[in-house]
Amino acid sequence: MRKIIALWLMSPVFLFAQSSIDSTYIKNISDEILRNGKAHDLLRVLTKEIGGRLAGSIQFTKAVTWGEAALKNAGADKVFLQECMMPNWQRGGKDNATILQINKNKTNRELDVLALGNSMGTGGKPLVAEVIGVADFADLEAKKDLVKGKIVYFNYKFNPTNIHPFTSYGQVGQYRRNGPSAAAKYGAVGVMIRSLTEATDNNPHTGSTAYDDAFPKIPAVALGGYDADYMWELCKKAAVTVSISTNGHFLPDAKGHNVVAELTGSEFPNEYIAVGGHLDSWDVNEGAHDDGAGIVQTIEVLRTLKALGYKPKYSLRFVLFANEENGLKGGLKYAEEAKAKNEKHVFALESDEGGFTPRGFGFTMAEKQLDKVKSWLPLLQPYGTETLNMGGGGADIGPLRTTFGTALGGLIPDAQRYFDIHHARSDVFENVNKRELLLGAVNMAALIYLIDKYGL
Amino acid sequence: MRKIIALWLMSPVFLFAQSSIDSTYIKNISDEILRNGKAHDLLRVLTKEIGGRLAGSIQFTKAVTWGEAALKNAGADKVFLQECMMPNWQRGGKDNATILQINKNKTNRELDVLALGNSMGTGGKPLVAEVIGVADFADLEAKKDLVKGKIVYFNYKFNPTNIHPFTSYGQVGQYRRNGPSAAAKYGAVGVMIRSLTEATDNNPHTGSTAYDDAFPKIPAVALGGYDADYMWELCKKAAVTVSISTNGHFLPDAKGHNVVAELTGSEFPNEYIAVGGHLDSWDVNEGAHDDGAGIVQTIEVLRTLKALGYKPKYSLRFVLFANEENGLKGGLKYAEEAKAKNEKHVFALESDEGGFTPRGFGFTMAEKQLDKVKSWLPLLQPYGTETLNMGGGGADIGPLRTTFGTALGGLIPDAQRYFDIHHARSDVFENVNKRELLLGAVNMAALIYLIDKYGL
Repeated sequence: MRKIIALWLMSPVFLFAQSSIDSTYIKNISDEILRNGKAHDLLRVLTKEIGGRLAGSIQFTKAVTWGEAALKNAGADKVFLQECMMPNWQRGGKDNATILQINKNKTNRELDVLALGNSMGTGGKPLVAEVIGVADFADLEAKKDLVKGKIVYFNYKFNPTNIHPFTSYGQVGQYRRNGPSAAAKYGAVGVMIRSLTEATDNNPHTGSTAYDDAFPKIPAVALGGYDADYMWELCKKAAVTVSISTNGHFLPDAKGHNVVAELTGSEFPNEYIAVGGHLDSWDVNEGAHDDGAGIVQTIEVLRTLKALGYKPKYSLRFVLFANEENGLKGGLKYAEEAKAKNEKHVFALESDEGGFTPRGFGFTMAEKQLDKVKSWLPLLQPYGTETLNMGGGGADIGPLRTTFGTALGGLIPDAQRYFDIHHARSDVFENVNKRELLLGAVNMAALIYLIDKYGL
Repeated sequence: MRKIIALWLMSPVFLFAQSSIDSTYIKNISDEILRNGKAHDLLRVLTKEIGGRLAGSIQFTKAVTWGEAALKNAGADKVFLQECMMPNWQRGGKDNATILQINKNKTNRELDVLALGNSMGTGGKPLVAEVIGVADFADLEAKKDLVKGKIVYFNYKFNPTNIHPFTSYGQVGQYRRNGPSAAAKYGAVGVMIRSLTEATDNNPHTGSTAYDDAFPKIPAVALGGYDADYMWELCKKAAVTVSISTNGHFLPDAKGHNVVAELTGSEFPNEYIAVGGHLDSWDVNEGAHDDGAGIVQTIEVLRTLKALGYKPKYSLRFVLFANEENGLKGGLKYAEEAKAKNEKHVFALESDEGGFTPRGFGFTMAEKQLDKVKSWLPLLQPYGTETLNMGGGGADIGPLRTTFGTALGGLIPDAQRYFDIHHARSDVFENVNKRELLLGAVNMAALIYLIDKYGL
C-alpha cells in the first residue's frame, strides 16, 4: 500500500493536481497582497514618521517599538525581542569638504560630501592637505611615494557594461571598505572616494568603511558624481588643496534589538523557516529601499499567510534584524540564540536589495535542494520570477548558514535604479513604487509557502 | 557541393560558431551603448529644452528640427521629412472642476483635473450640474433614466491583481475613449472619469477621448486618485453639484512631419526594416517616457550600429512618428508613402511603453517567424529579455501590417511604474533612469541586428 501511495505521489496526475492546487494558492496570495497589501502604508510610517534609523539612534529604538506592533497587528502567534549590543557611530554634525586652492589660486568651492560610516572625524578642526588622485589600488601602489601627508582621492568607477549593477558594486566596494587604510599605509592623512554609484546626480553615498588597526584611522568622505568628475579632472592637472571637516566618532555600544515574530508550525514546530530584512538604515536618508522595503515585505508575508488562514508545517519566523549596516550584530545575535536553543533552521530568506520589481531569487544551498526549488519555477513565473539560481542570500542570515548549514535565499529585484539611491539622501519613500514593492512580497510569500509545504 | 554547404550550415558546429559570433557582436552593441550611449543626454534636451510636444504645437515643430539634426549626428546615410496634416487640439487654458454644493451646503473644493485630449470645452462659461456616480458601463445602463442634465462620474478602476499593468489599461481605456459619448447618449451634460492609473498621488491623467458623432460632444475631465476616491464616496451618499470649466477646441489641421533616417542596405536596399517611436507627446508634461524614451532609443540604435561600422543587409529606417497621441496621422502617412513607393517592409519595431528595464518583446507575425525569433532568446537573455511572445507591436507601425503584412514587434519594458506617470504631469525627465533607458536600446539594437542578418 505504501508503495502504491509512493507511486501515486510520483504520477503525472498527482503532480498536475498538486501544481494546480499550488498555482491557485499562489494566485490567492498574489490577489491578497495586490488588493489589500499594507506594505506601502507601513513603509510610509517607517520612513516618514520614524525616518533614518542608524544603530544607536533614537529612531532605531522607535522602529523596534513600531516593528513589534506591526508584527502583532499582522497576526503573529508571538512576537519577542532579542537584545544585542550594537556599535554606536555618530556622524556628529555636517560633513564638509572645500577646495581651498587650485595651483596658487585661492578658491572656496564646496564639495557635496558624506563621511563614510564608522569613519573618524577630523578632530574638531579642518584637515587641510593637497590631493593626490588615484584611479585604483594599482595606481596607489605606483604613486605610494607621493602619498605622505596628502589626501588620497580614489576615482574607481562602476563598470557601466555590467548588466547587473551588483556585479559593479562588488567590484567598487573595496574602495569604500579598504581605501582609507590602504592610503593611510603610505602616510595619507585623509581619503576621498567617488561614491559607489552611477547616478546622474551629485548626491554623495555613505556606507561602512573598515579600518585596518595597523594604520592611522584617517578621515574619509564620499563625493557625488559631478564633484567626483570635477575632482578627477582637476587633480590630474593641478595642485589642489582641500579642507575636510568631519565629526565621526563612536559612543559606547548601544543596546538594540532584533524584532522576531512567529507562526508556530503544525508538523515541525521545532524546525524553522526565517524571513527577514534589516530594520536599521543609514542616518542621512529614510532607509526606504535599504531596507525599509525588506522590512515591510517581511511583515506583508506574515500578514498574508495569516489572512489566508495558512497553517505552516514548520515554524515561520519573521525577523527585523538590527544593525546590518555597520556591525551585523543583529544577524549574529539571531544565529547565536538559535544555536543556544537548538532551533534548527531549514531555510532563511532575506530581502535587502531594494523594493523594485522582483526578477528572481538567488540561493546558497545544496544542488539537490536547488533542483527542487527550480521545479517550482512555472509556479512563480506568472509573478515575475524568471531565475532561481545558485548564489545569494543576505548579510543578516549568513550566520545561520555557518551555524546550522541553513539553506539561504535572497530576493533579486531589478536593480538598475538601486545604486542611484543606495546610502544616499535620495533613498526616500517617494522613490519606492507601491506595485513593485508588493510584487516582491508576492514572490517571497509564494516561495515560503512552497518551501514550507514541500520542505527542501 | 551546394548540398554539402547546406548540411554544413545546419551542423551544430556551424550553428555554435554563428552563435558565438552573434553573442560577441551583441556584447559589442551592449558595451557601446552602456559606455557611450547618448540616449539620456538627448532625452534631456528633448524634454527640458523642448518640452511637451502635442501635434500642432510650436514644440512639436521644434522637435522635428531637433530630431532631424540628431539623426544626422547619429550617422544616417540620409534623413528626410514626411509631411502630414495633423489634428490641432488646443487645451486652451487651465482646466478646472470645483465642487460647489454638497446636499444643500455650499462649498468651494477644487478638484485637480485635466480635460481629456480631443474633448470640447465648456464654451467660455462654467458647466454647473449635479453629479451621478457610476461604477462602470453596466451601472450607467442601470441608472440611465437618472442621467439627463447631469455630470456622469465614471469610477472604473485598474484591477490591481493583474500582474501586467497593460492588461488593466486595456480594461479601463474604454472609459476614457467611450465614456463621454456613452453618457451623452442618455442626456448627460458632462463627464468626469477616474484617471487611468493606480498611482498613489493625485495627478490627473489626460489622453484621447473619441466622441461618437451621434451624440452631443460634452466636456470631459479626468480626476487624480485622491479626488476620485473622494468623489466616489461623496456622490454615493450626497447630492453633489460640480462646476467644470474647460477650453478644449480644434484649430484647423496643422502641418506636421515624420522624421525618417536611413542606413541603406547592402543586399536588399529596396526592402526595409523600420524602428521607431513617436515624437509627439501630451501638452501637460515633458513626454519623457511617452514617448521621448522610444525616440532616443531609436536614435541610439542608429548611432550604435553606425559606431560599430555595421553594414545592414536590408535598408534600416529610423522613424520619429508624428501625432500618435491624438490622431495617428504620422503612422498612417508612413505606410501610405511606403506603399506609394513600393517600399516593402519586412519588419517594424516600436518602443512606446516607456524607458524602463526591458523584459522582452511582443510580436505580431507568422508562427514560423516567431519560432525563428525565439531561437535567438539565448542571445538576448543576458541583456534582460526573458520573453519573445506573440502579441504586440505599436500604434505607429500598425498601418504597415495592414499595407504589407509587415511583421511587427514591440519592446516590452517592466511596466509597473508606467501608469503612475502616463499622460500625467509627472512624465518628466527626472523619472527616467539612464541605465534602464539604455538597456532598452541594447535589446532593440540586438534584435534589429539579428533580424537584419538572418531575415524573418
